[in-house]
Amino acid sequence: MRALLIVAHGSRRDESNAEVRRLAAAVAAQPNMPFADIRAAFLELAEPSIPDGLVQCAQAGATEVVVFPYFLAAGRHVATDIPEEVAKFTAIHPDVSVTITRHLGESAALPGMIMEVVRG
Amino acid sequence: MRALLIVAHGSRRDESNAEVRRLAAAVAAQPNMPFADIRAAFLELAEPSIPDGLVQCAQAGATEVVVFPYFLAAGRHVATDIPEEVAKFTAIHPDVSVTITRHLGESAALPGMIMEVVRG
Repeated sequence: MRALLIVAHGSRRDESNAEVRRLAAAVAAQPNMPFADIRAAFLELAEPSIPDGLVQCAQAGATEVVVFPYFLAAGRHVATDIPEEVAKFTAIHPDVSVTITRHLGESAALPGMIMEVVRG
Repeated sequence: MRALLIVAHGSRRDESNAEVRRLAAAVAAQPNMPFADIRAAFLELAEPSIPDGLVQCAQAGATEVVVFPYFLAAGRHVATDIPEEVAKFTAIHPDVSVTITRHLGESAALPGMIMEVVRG
């Protein structure tokens, strides 16, 4: 079974974390969904952490997890911190395959999506 | 003439600011573009500021500017800081109409776009 883990930075502001969880629910409602389990996790300041989120995916039956970095910039968080958090999980769960996709800001679809927003 | 100002937070990391400027160029390259002038501006830590970016739009001939908050969360920056920065411009340029769109994280197209990224 494949799972999708949407990883956000995490905020001291609960409502920002709730926005991310609502986004995960909206992604889960997309048509032709190839993932049976979709969750949000946070690099810091909110729960679950990335390793805890991956454990939840595994407990739900996932043998493959795709991690999507919900970040705009390719900074240290995307380049180093998220892979390090993922490695904490894979070191103890080598049976679960985890791949990390491009971050949001690098999506080729972003310019077109911005045009949809600004056209109103 | 209508201009689009893409407003990002701004980073101490030059490459993150360059990513935003490249995004603005990619948006400008979209088909059927209704904006004759497209720029990036930054809330803090990078140049141009929001008021300076709006002045640049006006100097390029814009009579209407659409401001797009390139932010994931609807926090204080989106709710308060960006409107305050815009107001600094409109107070001295009442002849230029400035509207602020929804922020990126609120886009209804975001869940579908995330699926495009994670399908690979």
